[in-house]
Amino acid sequence: MRATLIHGPRDIRLEDVPDPEVSRPSDALVRVVASCVCGSDLWPYRGVSPTRKPRRIGHEFVGTVEDVGADVTSVRVGDFVIAPFVISDGTCVHCRNGITTSCDNGEGWGSEDADGLVVDGGQGELVRVPLADGTLVATPEPPDADLVPALLALSDVMGTGHHAAVSAGVGRGSTVVVVGDGAVGLCGVLAARRLGADRVIAMSRHADRQAIAREFGATDIVEERGDEGVARIEDLLDGIGADSVLECVGTKESMQQAIDAARPGGRVGYVGVPAGGPKLPIQQLFGTNVGVAGGVAPVRAYLPELLAEVLDGTLRPGGVFDVELPLSEVAEAYAAMDERRAIKVLLRP
Amino acid sequence: MRATLIHGPRDIRLEDVPDPEVSRPSDALVRVVASCVCGSDLWPYRGVSPTRKPRRIGHEFVGTVEDVGADVTSVRVGDFVIAPFVISDGTCVHCRNGITTSCDNGEGWGSEDADGLVVDGGQGELVRVPLADGTLVATPEPPDADLVPALLALSDVMGTGHHAAVSAGVGRGSTVVVVGDGAVGLCGVLAARRLGADRVIAMSRHADRQAIAREFGATDIVEERGDEGVARIEDLLDGIGADSVLECVGTKESMQQAIDAARPGGRVGYVGVPAGGPKLPIQQLFGTNVGVAGGVAPVRAYLPELLAEVLDGTLRPGGVFDVELPLSEVAEAYAAMDERRAIKVLLRP
Repeated sequence: MRATLIHGPRDIRLEDVPDPEVSRPSDALVRVVASCVCGSDLWPYRGVSPTRKPRRIGHEFVGTVEDVGADVTSVRVGDFVIAPFVISDGTCVHCRNGITTSCDNGEGWGSEDADGLVVDGGQGELVRVPLADGTLVATPEPPDADLVPALLALSDVMGTGHHAAVSAGVGRGSTVVVVGDGAVGLCGVLAARRLGADRVIAMSRHADRQAIAREFGATDIVEERGDEGVARIEDLLDGIGADSVLECVGTKESMQQAIDAARPGGRVGYVGVPAGGPKLPIQQLFGTNVGVAGGVAPVRAYLPELLAEVLDGTLRPGGVFDVELPLSEVAEAYAAMDERRAIKVLLRP
Repeated sequence: MRATLIHGPRDIRLEDVPDPEVSRPSDALVRVVASCVCGSDLWPYRGVSPTRKPRRIGHEFVGTVEDVGADVTSVRVGDFVIAPFVISDGTCVHCRNGITTSCDNGEGWGSEDADGLVVDGGQGELVRVPLADGTLVATPEPPDADLVPALLALSDVMGTGHHAAVSAGVGRGSTVVVVGDGAVGLCGVLAARRLGADRVIAMSRHADRQAIAREFGATDIVEERGDEGVARIEDLLDGIGADSVLECVGTKESMQQAIDAARPGGRVGYVGVPAGGPKLPIQQLFGTNVGVAGGVAPVRAYLPELLAEVLDGTLRPGGVFDVELPLSEVAEAYAAMDERRAIKVLLRP
């Protein structure tokens, strides 16, 4: 089969690799229907995180089950499944607590397990899915083709935006600011409205992203950044900051922006992978009672709730995919996202 | 009248000063019935925070109203009142949000206001209380003398321990760790049990404090610190950390201890004034989804709820006062707390 490997900075290659197969009784084999490129895939792409040797990449995909191991009971051959961006067993204490990303037996896509067995990335034609019972969620029946983008969004960005909103304590009547207008930030807008927010201010300087933010329910757009951005937010919110701020970037500047945008007693929910060394200014947090929560989104735990609404058409995150390419153009998909020519690229094998 | 001034490190003096009086229409004049020394008073005492010139000190007291300004409507002459450790107007947006410590017109005890008018500290005989309507809470009738310590605890430590527990998300069935066995930590134990925690592990090495922790509802005591302490907590809690951790110290080490003691997805509620430069390890927080919230406790907002339970005898935080001294021995009160010969000293004028 063909699968995507990263060899180093800006070196993405689609290569022929051995077909994966069910190797353990808890595995499933999934034929990919659609996958995509994540903002976090851009870090090794940009060389921010090192690539020591060529490896599979990708961690967001949906597909159809082609085979299952003897122990698999929750998905069957022919099922359409969504794969969250972390593998989890669904049974350990952390999974039961809803923190599937801390699973005692968890693994990452595009790696090798303890025995040296390849764990496929999602940007390929076939994927061996370890711990299939814990990891995968099947739709009750094969979905309409036009639902695929929304279902694919559930593998990461929609669940991650939702995690930001939950971590920020968004509820009925909340005032919300979303820092970051990437796919996760846009999904954060959607999630905040879904949780009952009255006002959702999206911080964005890009007309195309502003348009999606509005479509997803943003009530206001703020283009300014830094102190000017905070002043603009206070203008919009009766002179104080927001009840909840969603930090969907992960840099030092974006985290400070998020903290500054929260009202005293407000909360920042952060899901931006902390790459640029975000600092948490403890004296400011202490003085203002602004809390900070979030982290690697346990999207598997949110999947049943969100999936039901995607299937009944009330939740529509598919709009984050503004470009669709065949898998053969995966290198262009990375380039388009890196150069911000695309918000998020959907890949079809 | 006599009032306590700090002149510099370890230089606490009871001095004769002019009697305060009602200077503004929103003032009340309160004769102190009891006051106390706060852990945070020890910082200027120890020279950790500088004392540039002699100033009044103290910010926890209860007393009887002797006079009120023309605009005061919520307390009357003769009322027994509790003064929270921050002055607040009760009407601004932050007070309405319950964050009275961020009051737009807030002031601190033992300072001077913008016009140079002295704001008395609590460790004296009389106190001019600015913004009396917002700041003070009166009991429905004069309390029994034996309730005074519990009522005095509401001016800071009980409300602060409660804020730690609320910020840490303590609820019915929670597992809780309390870092810090000072008066605030001990009140945190009481608060956590009151909010429904099943298990409350107090980290303490001192037999006298352990005894109060047990009396306040701690189910377990852990004497170890650092990694050993975390291992001991995990032994007690099914191999994982606690749902909620109350950080009641404020040093780098205590904050790290608190974060390490939380389970993935757990929450740290911190109220220890960040003196020693606590660090928030963002990568660890991100990876484990441990949230951090808290800050300067808005005890005024919690007073009505907690006061009702002190008055009906169901909430009994008075046990944090293990030493009682006359105001004339205020310098010894500081020394006793500094040398850890006392948990918390109650002063009677």
